[in-house]
Amino acid sequence: MKKHSDLYFTVDKAFKILLENITVPKNTELVPVFNSLGRILKDDVIAQENIPAYDSSHMDGYAIRSKDVTNASKKNPIVLKISRSESTLGITPRHILKKGEAYRIQTGGYMPLKSDAVIPVENTKLIHNALVEIVEPIEKTNFVYSIGSDIKKGKKVLYKEQVIRVQHMGLLASLRISKISVFRKPLVAVIPTGNELTDDIQDYRKNKENKVVNTNGPIISSLVNVLGGISIDMGVTPDDVGILQRKINHAIKNSDLIITIGGTSAGKQDIVKSTIDSMTSSGIIAHKIKLDRGRVTGLGFVNKKPIIVMPGPIQGSLNAFFVFARPLISLFSGQPTINVFSISATMVEDWTCRKKFRDFRKIVYVRLTKIKEKFYAKPVVGETQSISLIVNTNGYVTVPENVTNLFKGDVVQVNILPGYSYVNDIQFMG
Amino acid sequence: MKKHSDLYFTVDKAFKILLENITVPKNTELVPVFNSLGRILKDDVIAQENIPAYDSSHMDGYAIRSKDVTNASKKNPIVLKISRSESTLGITPRHILKKGEAYRIQTGGYMPLKSDAVIPVENTKLIHNALVEIVEPIEKTNFVYSIGSDIKKGKKVLYKEQVIRVQHMGLLASLRISKISVFRKPLVAVIPTGNELTDDIQDYRKNKENKVVNTNGPIISSLVNVLGGISIDMGVTPDDVGILQRKINHAIKNSDLIITIGGTSAGKQDIVKSTIDSMTSSGIIAHKIKLDRGRVTGLGFVNKKPIIVMPGPIQGSLNAFFVFARPLISLFSGQPTINVFSISATMVEDWTCRKKFRDFRKIVYVRLTKIKEKFYAKPVVGETQSISLIVNTNGYVTVPENVTNLFKGDVVQVNILPGYSYVNDIQFMG
Repeated sequence: MKKHSDLYFTVDKAFKILLENITVPKNTELVPVFNSLGRILKDDVIAQENIPAYDSSHMDGYAIRSKDVTNASKKNPIVLKISRSESTLGITPRHILKKGEAYRIQTGGYMPLKSDAVIPVENTKLIHNALVEIVEPIEKTNFVYSIGSDIKKGKKVLYKEQVIRVQHMGLLASLRISKISVFRKPLVAVIPTGNELTDDIQDYRKNKENKVVNTNGPIISSLVNVLGGISIDMGVTPDDVGILQRKINHAIKNSDLIITIGGTSAGKQDIVKSTIDSMTSSGIIAHKIKLDRGRVTGLGFVNKKPIIVMPGPIQGSLNAFFVFARPLISLFSGQPTINVFSISATMVEDWTCRKKFRDFRKIVYVRLTKIKEKFYAKPVVGETQSISLIVNTNGYVTVPENVTNLFKGDVVQVNILPGYSYVNDIQFMG
Repeated sequence: MKKHSDLYFTVDKAFKILLENITVPKNTELVPVFNSLGRILKDDVIAQENIPAYDSSHMDGYAIRSKDVTNASKKNPIVLKISRSESTLGITPRHILKKGEAYRIQTGGYMPLKSDAVIPVENTKLIHNALVEIVEPIEKTNFVYSIGSDIKKGKKVLYKEQVIRVQHMGLLASLRISKISVFRKPLVAVIPTGNELTDDIQDYRKNKENKVVNTNGPIISSLVNVLGGISIDMGVTPDDVGILQRKINHAIKNSDLIITIGGTSAGKQDIVKSTIDSMTSSGIIAHKIKLDRGRVTGLGFVNKKPIIVMPGPIQGSLNAFFVFARPLISLFSGQPTINVFSISATMVEDWTCRKKFRDFRKIVYVRLTKIKEKFYAKPVVGETQSISLIVNTNGYVTVPENVTNLFKGDVVQVNILPGYSYVNDIQFMG
């Protein structure tokens, strides 16, 4: 790994450099099936069982041999003898149905051997609780839910790298799978830096300071968790090289990916970068990115652990998170292709990029609304550190390097913000 | 409450009867802001702080009085005296800037009193580390992030009954709110019934039985949790009135809503209904619903606790859950209007209702796909107990009582299934 020059990197180039040097942790763990919601499958799943496990009855009635009643009619009622044995739900079938015999069966009960049809109880007449009269022919497989008709043994039912959904847990359990191999959730250390920050929300009440509450740390941590990682919230870190080194060293040992927030700038003050450079010869390999907001983002490695150095202001942090951290979390979770949920929407206003950053990749936050089943996107622009801006949006549009404008009427792809940003929720500043 | 006749109820009428007799639990609890993701706000939130708390600097440089440099130019450089006091991030401003004075300030630092503009350090010349030379006039508010410009004290920033999103947690903490009142999550007891069922996934290995794994219980429990409730999984209950009574009694004491699964039918065997009827004079108030699948669903009360009696087969259970349980969970969570995420899609095949159930409300499961930014829905029909059917779908269409067909090309509203059923995931049966 060599250091690259101190120019601005395109997003793609920076990410490519990162990927080329990365070792993807492919650790897996075995989890109980009903605790596997949202986890990523390690392997394909092949059914080792039939569902249903045996031919089963769809009705309360009698299992019979259809041939026995081929000639049944009102004029020619056929009487079958009720067998002593009858179905008990969940018990493996053992009874062999004899010619001329009927077998009491419940809905869901397993068919006795040699039987091939069910006649519902309401279409029969019971005689002396020992015989049953049938006045119509019954087709083979009538009301029979046949073995493997839902799922056949040997069929591939789920694919590796698939997200386990609610239904899948039911499927796996039905197939008698009690534990399943999934990729371990990546551990992501989040280190917010800055002397101006506090983790004590009510801090100012106590000591007449008025530090800014560290909200970016918990926001990023929360996004990590929502997107399938496990965040390690390392708390506010002052602009102190020694303390920062200790936290980063702790993060190297205990996480798969390190995110720092703040302490990075286009100017001279750049405490995070200089700390990392002091800790490793590889250091920051891409610093200053053609990303607006978020151009002071840095990417690098410390002791082979990838580190994303994010800007302090919320818009810059979020952009760096969506562009770099999110695909890494996805990759480290066992999903090489990231599954961002996006919706086509029509722009309701023009948007123009900031002049200095025409050839950058731009992230445009929008307010997505749904009117009569159509989606509309209104760009929401403002200060990079504005919390109200982020609160007022529910998605973002990625504008490529060669595009400088979005026009009213343009159809854009809006990436829904993770973490309950559904459309049409009641909105701040509605 | 009186018993209603034993006819089929429309979905709306049944739900109306339920609502008329229901007492909505409106309990709230105070939770730490950063643990409030997805919770429902009890009250409107009015900002009690300005953000930023004081006028702040956007740049590293000097806070000045703009009037002091009105006439500055290269030919007429103006020299200001650097004050001894300088900004420390997070410390409430106390220094009063004198005429002719400049105050060292960092990005994010609070402006001293009487200052009104910032000049970036790179546009100045430092003289003997005591004086600063300025060669251009600076406009008032230049590089100043003014008090309350992001959020003004007194503004309503969030609304009661709003879902708390990731961004909202940041907003609340920024406003110095450390704990927030939210509605308590409703407790939902889930009681799967049936002698054929087992909770032991590997059951058949041990005792040569071949019971069916109870998957509907965990699926419904999981949906309860995904949708903002807390499920109380009460485990498989045999078809035994005494045991069922004890479980229901336990559920009455420990939950807000009771769901039973199975043991209900259109025929004579109806152990859940008869158990409930035996426990209370109110009993089941609406049984047999014009809902396909799911017509044997029952709704009622035991000791004033609402109970939803769901069919055993998965499609019937899910339909009863989506139609009755989901809106109740939403209501009990503090959200009177349910926020189902739906997407417009074009049907790619015709669909026809089952003949017997023309005037029922129909739930049609579909496979939603996205091709070139457009959504398409393919109906997926099959046996009511089919697990593969549910695995193969990611949404459903509600077909009203007066509609019997959906046609290829129709645009329908697809409700996305909760629990990771995004579009374009790799699918079972491709």
